[in-house]
Amino acid sequence: MNVDIFEDERIDDLQFKGLKIIQNINGFCFGIDAVLLANFCKIKKNAEVIDLGTGTGIIPILLSGKSNAKRITGVEIQDEVVDMARRSVSLNDLEEKIEIVKCDIKCVQDSFEKNRYDVVVSNPPYMHSNGLINENDKKAISRHEVLCNLEDVIRGAAYLLKPNGRFFMINRPLRLVDMICYGRQYNLEPKFIRFVHSKANKAPKLVLMEYVKNAKPESKILEPLYVYGEDNKYTKEILDIYSNVSVAE
Amino acid sequence: MNVDIFEDERIDDLQFKGLKIIQNINGFCFGIDAVLLANFCKIKKNAEVIDLGTGTGIIPILLSGKSNAKRITGVEIQDEVVDMARRSVSLNDLEEKIEIVKCDIKCVQDSFEKNRYDVVVSNPPYMHSNGLINENDKKAISRHEVLCNLEDVIRGAAYLLKPNGRFFMINRPLRLVDMICYGRQYNLEPKFIRFVHSKANKAPKLVLMEYVKNAKPESKILEPLYVYGEDNKYTKEILDIYSNVSVAE
Repeated sequence: MNVDIFEDERIDDLQFKGLKIIQNINGFCFGIDAVLLANFCKIKKNAEVIDLGTGTGIIPILLSGKSNAKRITGVEIQDEVVDMARRSVSLNDLEEKIEIVKCDIKCVQDSFEKNRYDVVVSNPPYMHSNGLINENDKKAISRHEVLCNLEDVIRGAAYLLKPNGRFFMINRPLRLVDMICYGRQYNLEPKFIRFVHSKANKAPKLVLMEYVKNAKPESKILEPLYVYGEDNKYTKEILDIYSNVSVAE
Repeated sequence: MNVDIFEDERIDDLQFKGLKIIQNINGFCFGIDAVLLANFCKIKKNAEVIDLGTGTGIIPILLSGKSNAKRITGVEIQDEVVDMARRSVSLNDLEEKIEIVKCDIKCVQDSFEKNRYDVVVSNPPYMHSNGLINENDKKAISRHEVLCNLEDVIRGAAYLLKPNGRFFMINRPLRLVDMICYGRQYNLEPKFIRFVHSKANKAPKLVLMEYVKNAKPESKILEPLYVYGEDNKYTKEILDIYSNVSVAE
């Protein structure tokens, strides 16, 4: 399908089932975290899935290729980004499967049914807002807690999920305590946690978490995910993940 | 100094500054977790230190060798174990430095001053009690939450510590969420977390945590600690830790 592409945009080929994505060359472009998060999600056939803070729509588009979800909804607050994500959905002829909804994560109860979704996904802004950030700065909104914070995301996920539904998130390790405490506060029990390290002897750079709504305590820390081996080349696991999808630099 | 040693006890040489410890051959003997925890503790000169659930007294005895603490108190509830730990203190001529106090961790407020200690240490029972455990089983009391649970230990640590005082704990990763949530609940913010893995590609077996009382959020996950290398031999870091102290099998 032909869709409009603006001057400050480009189309990237995801090299995965023919999928493509439109990204703004001056905006926030997806990176390894989106790919790792999509890979970490476990989605059953016919599942109802929702992505909070979908941005370019990269997570719904990757998940459409790797799962048999019934429907994937991407929630985004920024008008221009909503429009761009919708054009990416059209570009891939995925209108039947993916819907991009303009909505504030703080107000999901106004637009979405409670306890409906099997899976919630989010790659939220990582950084605490320092209060100095321009609210019109699209990159800042994707990286800093300008328009919503981690508690808003977790509260929204808890509202949307069915009992025993699963919430998958990626974040920075410095937010680990917040991720865990807000989870338990909203009855999303962290069940599986995986740290992502650049190399085996380094501190982790990212953390993947799978929460289960209303689950009992006791968490499992999975084996670490290493990006580079001793030889400074990608590990086999990363190559396997990347062989399905390329990442824009 | 000569002390009484009973028939079911043995003296182990810690091969570290001439220190020795008495252990009951049918009871709970210290292992790698006590050594890793003692190594993980940061103790300033003249610090007041207290170990909750001291058992044989292994942590106070190791810390007496590796720190210049002013005084180290070991808290233990089981009469026979208190007696054995006191004899280990005497055996090492450490009565001036280490005191073993019989006390229930749930009642530290009855025996100890609030907000007094610079450092609290604990290697608590790891497992949830299943309700089937004999309350007279000394090994079970050291391993299962028969007489106190994780919340009791964390509440006690929070009571005992000065503002900005530090609490060092080792536990199993399956208790990570409890360790973090109870910490924040009692104003002990987890600041440094280190996972201990048998090997680099395995899930962690143990987790070391450093809490700071009344600290701001944001945690640091440290580089992993690996026990064995690719060659199945101890890593250099473990050899360095062990070169200071041997561990009973």
